Amino acid sequence: MSESLKRARDANIYLLGVMGSGKSTVGRLLACVLGRDFLDLDEEIVTRAGCTISQIFEREGEQGFRARESAVLREVVQRKNSVVALGGGAVLKDENWELVRQTGISIYLKARPEILAQRVEGDTERPVLVGLTPPQRRQKLSEILERRKARYEQAHYTIENEGTPAEAVARICELVFPDLASRPNPPAPFPKEEGGALPSPFRGGGGGEVRPGEGQGEMSLPKIVSVALGARSYFIWVKPGLLQHLGELYRGYRLGARAVIITDTIVAPLYGELVADSLRKNGVETLLVRVPPGEEHKSLQTVEMLYTRLLEAGLDRQTTIIAVGGGVIGDVAGFVASTVLRGVPYIQIPTTLLAQVDSSVGGKTGVNHPLGKNLIGTFYQPRCVFIDPTVLKTLPERERWSGLAEVIKYGLIGDPALFERVETELEGFAQRPELLSAVIARCCAIKAQIVSADERESGLRKFLNFGHTVGHALEAASAYQMRHGEAIAWGMLVAARLSHEKTGLSTSELERMEKLFARFPKPSLGPSLGQIALERGVLELVRRDKKARDGRAQFVLLRAIGEPVLCDSVSEAELRAILSQL
Amino acid sequence: MSESLKRARDANIYLLGVMGSGKSTVGRLLACVLGRDFLDLDEEIVTRAGCTISQIFEREGEQGFRARESAVLREVVQRKNSVVALGGGAVLKDENWELVRQTGISIYLKARPEILAQRVEGDTERPVLVGLTPPQRRQKLSEILERRKARYEQAHYTIENEGTPAEAVARICELVFPDLASRPNPPAPFPKEEGGALPSPFRGGGGGEVRPGEGQGEMSLPKIVSVALGARSYFIWVKPGLLQHLGELYRGYRLGARAVIITDTIVAPLYGELVADSLRKNGVETLLVRVPPGEEHKSLQTVEMLYTRLLEAGLDRQTTIIAVGGGVIGDVAGFVASTVLRGVPYIQIPTTLLAQVDSSVGGKTGVNHPLGKNLIGTFYQPRCVFIDPTVLKTLPERERWSGLAEVIKYGLIGDPALFERVETELEGFAQRPELLSAVIARCCAIKAQIVSADERESGLRKFLNFGHTVGHALEAASAYQMRHGEAIAWGMLVAARLSHEKTGLSTSELERMEKLFARFPKPSLGPSLGQIALERGVLELVRRDKKARDGRAQFVLLRAIGEPVLCDSVSEAELRAILSQL
Repeated sequence: MSESLKRARDANIYLLGVMGSGKSTVGRLLACVLGRDFLDLDEEIVTRAGCTISQIFEREGEQGFRARESAVLREVVQRKNSVVALGGGAVLKDENWELVRQTGISIYLKARPEILAQRVEGDTERPVLVGLTPPQRRQKLSEILERRKARYEQAHYTIENEGTPAEAVARICELVFPDLASRPNPPAPFPKEEGGALPSPFRGGGGGEVRPGEGQGEMSLPKIVSVALGARSYFIWVKPGLLQHLGELYRGYRLGARAVIITDTIVAPLYGELVADSLRKNGVETLLVRVPPGEEHKSLQTVEMLYTRLLEAGLDRQTTIIAVGGGVIGDVAGFVASTVLRGVPYIQIPTTLLAQVDSSVGGKTGVNHPLGKNLIGTFYQPRCVFIDPTVLKTLPERERWSGLAEVIKYGLIGDPALFERVETELEGFAQRPELLSAVIARCCAIKAQIVSADERESGLRKFLNFGHTVGHALEAASAYQMRHGEAIAWGMLVAARLSHEKTGLSTSELERMEKLFARFPKPSLGPSLGQIALERGVLELVRRDKKARDGRAQFVLLRAIGEPVLCDSVSEAELRAILSQL
Repeated sequence: MSESLKRARDANIYLLGVMGSGKSTVGRLLACVLGRDFLDLDEEIVTRAGCTISQIFEREGEQGFRARESAVLREVVQRKNSVVALGGGAVLKDENWELVRQTGISIYLKARPEILAQRVEGDTERPVLVGLTPPQRRQKLSEILERRKARYEQAHYTIENEGTPAEAVARICELVFPDLASRPNPPAPFPKEEGGALPSPFRGGGGGEVRPGEGQGEMSLPKIVSVALGARSYFIWVKPGLLQHLGELYRGYRLGARAVIITDTIVAPLYGELVADSLRKNGVETLLVRVPPGEEHKSLQTVEMLYTRLLEAGLDRQTTIIAVGGGVIGDVAGFVASTVLRGVPYIQIPTTLLAQVDSSVGGKTGVNHPLGKNLIGTFYQPRCVFIDPTVLKTLPERERWSGLAEVIKYGLIGDPALFERVETELEGFAQRPELLSAVIARCCAIKAQIVSADERESGLRKFLNFGHTVGHALEAASAYQMRHGEAIAWGMLVAARLSHEKTGLSTSELERMEKLFARFPKPSLGPSLGQIALERGVLELVRRDKKARDGRAQFVLLRAIGEPVLCDSVSEAELRAILSQL
């Protein structure tokens, strides 16, 4: 791709491919998600001619049609900032192809003939396929493909489009607008310029207050994180204003005609109804079910209530469950989705920072049992996750800090640049959706990479537990008066001090962490945290930790920021000494 | 393999392979399952020498050891009917190898060096590995393997043994004692000789009353059905007296040190306690949990009660749940196993004929909801299924007939020889464990084949629904006074008559089916079944069938016995006419 084209942030995007490759459907959704105009070259020809393509072929022959096509294309390429679906044959003329190449990014949507044939079934507007039987159609499409392949493959990008339109759009965004989020190990430090880390021509201006449901236009690009889990792989979409396009995205996933939104009574008026409206506008029959908020409702009772509501409403195997809310809603709705009718499709729309960076990846669902947290549950992957960081502006201050603690964890275990970014830009995070998008996507990418690699015996997944050994114990010792993230922040501080003593974390890095955590608001629990920790048996809780071996907890410590290491030689005396100073 | 060897039903089984290949562990379990003696050549040498192998090597060198080995082998091959684990180097001498080849079936247990190295870790009794680091051990094993491979591969059979010992035993049984059960399309009619269909030298005498928990000795071989589902594949073991070896098999699967048996109050004293005893004798800590019997307890309430019992007992992720009972127990226990702690290992021991031939395959778990049957559930595969047909002798008469209806279904949709077998030997089935073994294994194999192939768009799985469209409706119309199988039997009769009218089922085949079903006991429901069917809205129920399309039920009909076909052109008038004659 030429450098000038790369720099032209308003260059068109051209979609190529034979009939049935999905140029129009994918193009429309891509334009919608990018906030650009969409244009279908064939439709444009039809509009101007005032008759159908079949009629043009009849009256003027293919030659006449191609002449019209070239003429319209010459006008279309004058536009900017558009997504253009090109007719299958439009790029065969060298003269047309040159125009396309020089004025935008070209993307070839590739699919096998049998898939193409299925898609054009029942379509009567394709002159070359008229009167053919299904096997003849497949044969014909195969021949056309063979003839044009060489040209299509000259496109800047080739995307396999054999799934749903939404997945094709996600792949395009991932490939054409690469983001640091998807890089496993960022070779360069996380760029710090305002607005979010995109070394791409398409990145728009950054920052600014944005309400969900209000378009971001071209100023923001979706950040796509792919969670690779074989047949159960899925995409996480992160973009300010994403909820505005929810109905289109849902349809782009080719999901059922009916959806059930599960949310809580706090989130319902804020975002639940927004999501429902967007679905209804796109012809999806929608039911909104509200559950009471809070961890105490993460129970089998809530699950049973939901089963009954859903079944009474006539839920069937195509009905999609959409969770709109924090971790509790995601866990409960996911559990219901995995167990009702032996599993229905399910979408997550996390609305807290903690849920966005933590429970979006990994497929854990579940509810509490009187005997313990999360004891009942399943592994069940969503079809997709939609994250709109603008929803965080209504998040209570305490919840924001709680989520930030998990963000910092990802930096400490996997990305020093992310840690540095949080360090420099901690305050005011929630007001800057573009910055949040970049950070959330990066966290999801780190977790996705760890979860995908879990089957290898790398022990990688244990690193996600950084700060959690002491954190969980503090959370329990405070009788859940501390938020999860608050407790984890303290747990990370303890782990940092242990790392300084035992695994060589440098004094300067320890100090950076101390400084960062000092900016966190302190929970007001009465006595000092150290006192609570020791009086309420944190040492005992640590010893009984789920992941403990032979009564000795396994700690995740750091050799340096970004270099986690497992350590099971922390003695009770060492831990007691550090806790007493909290 | 020589013909004479094939015919020698008392020939030894020799296991070959390098150290760590699992010869002793697999051999012991194989001997146990086959009711044979087990002998470990190395142990025999040690016993006779009165000192360890290391000591022999020290005092007499390898040459001395090999001389002893040959001498002991010459005696061992005189035995018959034994499973013999041969020392890794025992077959390298041509003279030894000739002895082995001529006196039994040789099986090479194959594994990669890294797996072998893991297995011998910590073992100090291997002279050649003494003092080596783990990488050196792997290297050494790799070299030994390379040197001996050519000889090992001359064995009659090669079995990959990289999983658990029990899986290796299942593979050996499957490969060495092939059974009609595992053939997708039996080329010849189902053999009818007494005792069960095994064209193998190892088949013993047949029939006879056998109590579970009493050994069958060599007279019966396990029939192994493999359910191929990728990483979640598993084996179904079918053998009279199998429950006797349950503890050994459990250990052979390398499952956790604790097991929870879920059963009902009827089955508990019959078989639940037997299973618990066998586990305890093998050092497995066992909890037996009883639930009340019957479909009305297939509920979320029972599930909740089980969660609490299990969690109170300290269940962890390694604890294995074992379902001992009919379909209700299997479905409930499977659901609990799939959802407690996000899934724990699970074993099925079905004790009704219906559960053995139907719910052993497919991984469906679930409970009823007040709004309908099986509305809550998961897909969750067991680690293994153990079927001991001798348990059927305590099955109530009505349940036996109910199960037989499903057996007949498998014959009608997939195996004319199976149908014929049931036709000729219907009465007294339950008294003949060997016959039952063959029939049950064949049914499981047919279902396994259909379930594995489901992902292909063959529509094959729909055929399992033969007789169920009307059957389900009759079951509901009788307010569940009819057993599932009884209702299915009537449903199949209706489908047969429709097939005669619509899809060309011959008069003679229809008559065979009519005759067979006439031998079924009639449910005493007061008025005739036809009257009930029409008065209680069976037509309406059929229209609302889950699998109906546009209000028209899809029927599975037959072109001939063994040739199912889908038909959605059955009119209400046609169905009414046939129902009214029931």
